[in-house]
Amino acid sequence: MPNILFAARPERWTHYEPHLREALAEANLSHANLTTEANPAEVDYIIYAPNGDVQDFTPFTRLKAVLNLWAGVEDVVGNETLTVPLARMVDYGLTEGMVDWVVGHTLRHHLGMDAHIHGQDGTWRAGIVPPLARNRTVAILGLGALGTACATALAGLNFRVTGWSRSPKNIPGVQTAHGPDGLQKILKSAEIVTLLLPDTPATENTLNAETLALMPQGAVILNPGRGPLIDDDALLAALDSGQISHATLDTFRIEPLPKEHPFWAHPKVTVTPHIASETRADSAARVIIDNIRRGEAGEPFLHLVDRDLGY
Amino acid sequence: MPNILFAARPERWTHYEPHLREALAEANLSHANLTTEANPAEVDYIIYAPNGDVQDFTPFTRLKAVLNLWAGVEDVVGNETLTVPLARMVDYGLTEGMVDWVVGHTLRHHLGMDAHIHGQDGTWRAGIVPPLARNRTVAILGLGALGTACATALAGLNFRVTGWSRSPKNIPGVQTAHGPDGLQKILKSAEIVTLLLPDTPATENTLNAETLALMPQGAVILNPGRGPLIDDDALLAALDSGQISHATLDTFRIEPLPKEHPFWAHPKVTVTPHIASETRADSAARVIIDNIRRGEAGEPFLHLVDRDLGY
Repeated sequence: MPNILFAARPERWTHYEPHLREALAEANLSHANLTTEANPAEVDYIIYAPNGDVQDFTPFTRLKAVLNLWAGVEDVVGNETLTVPLARMVDYGLTEGMVDWVVGHTLRHHLGMDAHIHGQDGTWRAGIVPPLARNRTVAILGLGALGTACATALAGLNFRVTGWSRSPKNIPGVQTAHGPDGLQKILKSAEIVTLLLPDTPATENTLNAETLALMPQGAVILNPGRGPLIDDDALLAALDSGQISHATLDTFRIEPLPKEHPFWAHPKVTVTPHIASETRADSAARVIIDNIRRGEAGEPFLHLVDRDLGY
Repeated sequence: MPNILFAARPERWTHYEPHLREALAEANLSHANLTTEANPAEVDYIIYAPNGDVQDFTPFTRLKAVLNLWAGVEDVVGNETLTVPLARMVDYGLTEGMVDWVVGHTLRHHLGMDAHIHGQDGTWRAGIVPPLARNRTVAILGLGALGTACATALAGLNFRVTGWSRSPKNIPGVQTAHGPDGLQKILKSAEIVTLLLPDTPATENTLNAETLALMPQGAVILNPGRGPLIDDDALLAALDSGQISHATLDTFRIEPLPKEHPFWAHPKVTVTPHIASETRADSAARVIIDNIRRGEAGEPFLHLVDRDLGY
């Protein structure tokens, strides 16, 4: 009977406990002892968040693994008292939620849905038929785990998918490019572009007055990535000129987006409140419990952190 | 030299003629006589649309086949003067357009997009995260070519997909059922249901007061199939009671939907003007001419309608 210590703040426990118990039942581990208080010498696994109580792992003499609740491990990876395997959160829920949001909003703009959602005035506007997905070019900027999953899903729906990343990538069904010349090339044909780049000094203002002008007139921007990837003023100007027909934005330089920010009132902007990719307690619980099941079955742990690389 | 009569309205002729002639050339049938006026006794094939001139097929004494321009054949299948093979349109453009519409509107309702599209009032509504697609059950009623394509696409996006049809079907990744008991079972778990059944006496009012009441509270209806599949008054009552949270409808008993129909003004209804699946002239022309090529070569026709089943 493994002892599992949940070492994160109490409100997390309230949120995660039912999902963890359900995941334990699914993994035939209902007999495990899941708790927020335990004798350290008897604990087999710690479910860990950096701002919880446990900072010194020395008393946990029979510990088999530490399972981080988040993807980021920067606050624990350097802890010298931690000598057992450390796993990060790699939540399929994060990726799948992002795919739902990106594919959904791509299809929304591809089909011109808003004209119908807003236009329920009794006028039968027949004859305006969108092209087939196979005749629509959509671009993904940033081809990490999230961007690759979105590009693959869109290609599976027959869109012409292009993708750009800093270094070369090879994704079946996706026409990729890299480097500064590659970005220009991808933007020139991108009717709907999705930003999934990391937030680094090199990616700030990837979409600016110059790059927005490269896109086909009437192109659409989706930003579920990071706020600083876009120069807000340049985007507003491009929307006003008609160069960009719509922007659906999920991330912003300041969040929550201040009430007075012009994005809120702009008729060509849809603000969504950073919901594209949320950690889901149900899927996160399954990822953690699956690692405990593996530990108990003598199988290798998944998502292990390389302590030397730091991630 | 086969004589091919194009029996649809003149504006269709303008639209289709170049595509049909191109498809004839591709099929090495440039010598065929494609026309809008012919002596009925000399016509080999009729390219047919229900609202054209031909209602009585008796004078077409050497007719080999009737090739419908649309998927729906309800206006011609009962015509007792028609005794030769009748083929429906099975156009990859129809299928792909339908997949775009069904997947797009399924994701729109899955993600609760309308709340954001309408709610740009400066309020940051965080914390309302939709379930993952894998935790959302979507049902397709009708598993013909269109229904199967939509079910497969939704399963590819990780939705829990269920499907119902008159006779048993086996579709990878889709939980199927058939017959009256099967319909009840499928509706009981269907959070978003798409109607893609043919329009026959047996399918009229498939969604009525009784069957709508079987669905989970707050379920969503998509009808890109045929208007008569739904009892309009029962749907309006279910929307008003909250049993059904939204209906996005592309097909109606009378089209264009009359301005005074309550669907237009209902806040929980989105009307789209029969655009989910539009025949694309280029691909449709190839499908029709391929059947004529088959007829001339003595090969079996494709996409034949079963006159007893009515589709």
